[in-house]
Amino acid sequence: MATEVEERNNAKQRLRLWLQMLKATRSVEAKLRNKLREDYGTTLPRFDVLAVLNSNPDGMKMSDLSQFLVVSNGNVTGVVTRLVEDGLVQRTNIEEDRRAFLVKITPQGSKLASDIAAAHMTWINEIMADVTEPDAARGISIMLDVRQKS
Amino acid sequence: MATEVEERNNAKQRLRLWLQMLKATRSVEAKLRNKLREDYGTTLPRFDVLAVLNSNPDGMKMSDLSQFLVVSNGNVTGVVTRLVEDGLVQRTNIEEDRRAFLVKITPQGSKLASDIAAAHMTWINEIMADVTEPDAARGISIMLDVRQKS
Repeated sequence: MATEVEERNNAKQRLRLWLQMLKATRSVEAKLRNKLREDYGTTLPRFDVLAVLNSNPDGMKMSDLSQFLVVSNGNVTGVVTRLVEDGLVQRTNIEEDRRAFLVKITPQGSKLASDIAAAHMTWINEIMADVTEPDAARGISIMLDVRQKS
Repeated sequence: MATEVEERNNAKQRLRLWLQMLKATRSVEAKLRNKLREDYGTTLPRFDVLAVLNSNPDGMKMSDLSQFLVVSNGNVTGVVTRLVEDGLVQRTNIEEDRRAFLVKITPQGSKLASDIAAAHMTWINEIMADVTEPDAARGISIMLDVRQKS
């Protein structure tokens, strides 16, 4: 049994971990955002949509895409509309359900998504260069524990 | 020296860590957002502003507050305007600089900020109940390594 003092210290340490997770995540996201803008003139939400559609080459219902990305339908719709204008995604009506759209990546979009995914892996590897392999493995397991009850 | 295969595995493992960090952070934030809404009828951006102002009881320039929160000035302005309407924050002109505002927490705002901060620590402790003290300490050090180059 942990004493009251130990429990209080654990709580403080967990809060510290949470604040460091927030800082680290925001810091990496800011770096990725810069790289995407500088190297590809694109944004994180655009890349998120392209990456998901590239993993589903047969296309997805707009509603499934939104749910997968856990962003509001409105945001995904706006992003998809611009991707369609740029010829990276195509949107077609679904015969069985006239209110629903099927969203599908184009060959041009697929090429771009693959290029950015490869660059993304390189950027993460550079940004996290100080994280050793054992620490990465331990970090993954800790992040899974964080999500356990949340 | 790491071989090419080892380097590639390290890169993959770092990418996995990044994806798990993102998932864990989003999951905890969603939980906190629910708690703030259910228990205090408030939002994360509102709590962020209150918490920073509560740590600076003499008040802050609007520009310093925005910079500290790393959100766009527009967002902070909107949040502060509503906090002023609710009597939790007061906004006064600065004599030396007529274009600048000083933003200061009220006693009522300070009481609320302290209450929520205490609840916030309890929530994090519950959400992260599966994270042991040694894992929290290791996690903090890994998060610092992640930020090292970013």
